[in-house]
Amino acid sequence: MAATSIKQLLAGSIATGNTVRVQGWVRSRRDSKGGFSFMAIHDGSSFDAIQAVIPAELDNYQDEILQAGAGCSVKITGELVASQGKGQAFEIQAQSVDVVGWVDDPESYPIAKKRHSFEYLRTVAHLRPRTNTFGAITRVRTVLANAIHNYFFEREFQWINTPLITASDCEGAGELFRVSTLDLTHLPRTENDAIDFAQDFFGEESFLTVSGQLNVESYCMALSKVYTFGPTFRAENSNTSRHLAEFWMVEPEIAFADLNDDADLAEDFLSYLFNTVLEKCEDDLAFFNQFVDKTCLERLQTVADKNFVRMDYTEAVSILEKTKKTFEYPVKWGIDLQSEHERFLCEEHVGAPVVVMNYPKDIKAFYMRMNDDEKTVAAMDVLAPGIGEIIGGSQREERLDILNARMAEQGIGDELWWYKDLRRYGTVPHAGFGLGFERLISYVTGMENIRDVIPFPRTPGNAPF
Amino acid sequence: MAATSIKQLLAGSIATGNTVRVQGWVRSRRDSKGGFSFMAIHDGSSFDAIQAVIPAELDNYQDEILQAGAGCSVKITGELVASQGKGQAFEIQAQSVDVVGWVDDPESYPIAKKRHSFEYLRTVAHLRPRTNTFGAITRVRTVLANAIHNYFFEREFQWINTPLITASDCEGAGELFRVSTLDLTHLPRTENDAIDFAQDFFGEESFLTVSGQLNVESYCMALSKVYTFGPTFRAENSNTSRHLAEFWMVEPEIAFADLNDDADLAEDFLSYLFNTVLEKCEDDLAFFNQFVDKTCLERLQTVADKNFVRMDYTEAVSILEKTKKTFEYPVKWGIDLQSEHERFLCEEHVGAPVVVMNYPKDIKAFYMRMNDDEKTVAAMDVLAPGIGEIIGGSQREERLDILNARMAEQGIGDELWWYKDLRRYGTVPHAGFGLGFERLISYVTGMENIRDVIPFPRTPGNAPF
Repeated sequence: MAATSIKQLLAGSIATGNTVRVQGWVRSRRDSKGGFSFMAIHDGSSFDAIQAVIPAELDNYQDEILQAGAGCSVKITGELVASQGKGQAFEIQAQSVDVVGWVDDPESYPIAKKRHSFEYLRTVAHLRPRTNTFGAITRVRTVLANAIHNYFFEREFQWINTPLITASDCEGAGELFRVSTLDLTHLPRTENDAIDFAQDFFGEESFLTVSGQLNVESYCMALSKVYTFGPTFRAENSNTSRHLAEFWMVEPEIAFADLNDDADLAEDFLSYLFNTVLEKCEDDLAFFNQFVDKTCLERLQTVADKNFVRMDYTEAVSILEKTKKTFEYPVKWGIDLQSEHERFLCEEHVGAPVVVMNYPKDIKAFYMRMNDDEKTVAAMDVLAPGIGEIIGGSQREERLDILNARMAEQGIGDELWWYKDLRRYGTVPHAGFGLGFERLISYVTGMENIRDVIPFPRTPGNAPF
Repeated sequence: MAATSIKQLLAGSIATGNTVRVQGWVRSRRDSKGGFSFMAIHDGSSFDAIQAVIPAELDNYQDEILQAGAGCSVKITGELVASQGKGQAFEIQAQSVDVVGWVDDPESYPIAKKRHSFEYLRTVAHLRPRTNTFGAITRVRTVLANAIHNYFFEREFQWINTPLITASDCEGAGELFRVSTLDLTHLPRTENDAIDFAQDFFGEESFLTVSGQLNVESYCMALSKVYTFGPTFRAENSNTSRHLAEFWMVEPEIAFADLNDDADLAEDFLSYLFNTVLEKCEDDLAFFNQFVDKTCLERLQTVADKNFVRMDYTEAVSILEKTKKTFEYPVKWGIDLQSEHERFLCEEHVGAPVVVMNYPKDIKAFYMRMNDDEKTVAAMDVLAPGIGEIIGGSQREERLDILNARMAEQGIGDELWWYKDLRRYGTVPHAGFGLGFERLISYVTGMENIRDVIPFPRTPGNAPF
């Protein structure tokens, strides 16, 4: 007999009175004096466990059932019945219970039932998906990842997997991981005693990428609407709750589009994602809203309802200068906005998500389109209450002469010859943005530390499992 | 006025007589003596371009239209009409044509209209998506990637992004890329003069992963049905048409499942993917079938129809030993099957996809489940006509004592303590497989060189763009 998922059973997909089978793990067991036991079984398909009522008459009741505690794996067959207790509408009257896998020494089981700190659970990242919280995070991740792909697919975007290993990473910063097969104990040298990367795997010094944007632009200039959704890397030595060395990023890119089109896309995209997760992860979000962050649902609804306000950077600075609030970082035109500024704007001043547009050119990347004032570029940040910047994007410089000048200013040389080609042959105005997937998950779940919203976090000093 | 995609226009989504706008790139232009020009415009949304008929009366006809050739970007507004010619059912009677971006020196445009070799096009990987072939490959990739995610999502699988950077990669082989931020010109040393990886970014020697399987098993042991779909790496110095240093892999893992369940999943999954691509990429596949590989559609249909044959490795060897065909690599029980053997089995002996099951334990990995004969393990390969192995999988060893013995035999030590924990706490029989995404795309499109089915291929000596 095939098993049915607990999600399907709790949703009422099968009529009561039928014999069903569930398989999963024991969340808890309680023994009644009345001659039966209650087992809560989870299988990962839903937030809630299903309860099985197990009569003492079963052959293995004394020897097995009464020994089977949290974490044991079981197969249960029985009749699906309406539940008498509060909580779920359905439960199972067990006719047989097979204990498939035991827990060695239940006393030392690392995630035995009591509550654990998130910090501790990071040290058992291979077992934490068995907890309520990490099961819920996993389901939210899956629903949002699926929503991202389907949003773009339904709108005729092509998914482009840009390369992770690159020898021409010019976005700057220099916080890059080197990828190499050179033997470190016998490094090959050139005549000038420099490291001879010509002998490395790719024939030149190679790194893990920090963004797929430049590559995906070449597909945008052929297929009009494209996106990436893949891993990106930062070798930044930041031990904070907001930084990961390896994380996933979504980067759409659209042709025949300017900065307003880009903001339209960002708003519509976020609204779609939040509506989807509100609809499909009701139980999981209710859990986060109750136990992790009580503003979670309200925040999601605000963004889902698309109450975005757009303002120019110059206006934003003027608002920040006029307020009586004092900031750690002083404000004047030309600075990059800090988290405290961003959060003031969206949380206190507007009370809704804000799109700040047209930033000073000197604090932005070479590929952002120069505005007519020659002081600002067509960049935008989407700021959301409770987190600050959630999306960063720009219209790209599509004019070859201006791009050349900007690249020369920043000392970027011929390695991006191919990127210039995109402006040389059939250039069009185009724009795009980046959304950090783990940042999105943090925002949706209210989980404060980004290490807790990715299965196996990579941070300075840590790449276990 | 908003633009409509060419896919929508050609599909008849808008009634003739309406004014429409398209934006895209000129594939070709032809000037008639009758006082008008024909332009074929593509925007990446579909295989076919749409034809615009441009009257000489337009203001910019002489100065612009007659100069705008292949690769120029244009916006065209006009009336959608039924086409008189053969080919498409619809065309546009242009009322205005804006040339948005020109082609610098059309004579030297790297992908001017004539046919190019795939080898040449790899040197202009930033422009090759503008060609028929690479546009089609991109759409097939997108449809299949979306089908993969939706197949699993609809069946309650959770998507797990396993880490790419890992310090505990024990799958063996040793063909790994090192990930490091150490300064190669001043390598830190330990007291014993070894490289001091404690000072590297992650505090120990770290690599790019070759598989997410071991990690994803830990999620399988909590959420029952999971999968990865992400990049993997091989630092193998193989300059062949079948190897990439960086490629994407799909790895589902299912709990409470044995090798037969695994084979069922693999068959159903491939059948779903091929049915989806046959339905959604009709035009693109017709192109591949005509110009790239004339057996393409027939092959896809065979797999889509699920005519899989299962046989034991031992039976497969016996068939290979009995045939009169001579092989380069001689056959006897205990060898790993070579491509020539695999292709003989599925192409000549069976004439359909074959699942070979239960391989000798000595040629398989430590985590595969030992069979009762103690000579074979519960491994399987799915072989498809025209390519050989397309999927490899196994039931995993869920018994701690046997796993311990297998790991000890292969000299794998304590670094996998966490993997053993999965057997210590609530173990269940489970199984999974891996499907190389680019291998799938090669198979579907008939493209012979795997470098041509990924946007920017990484191979020994090559990581440009």
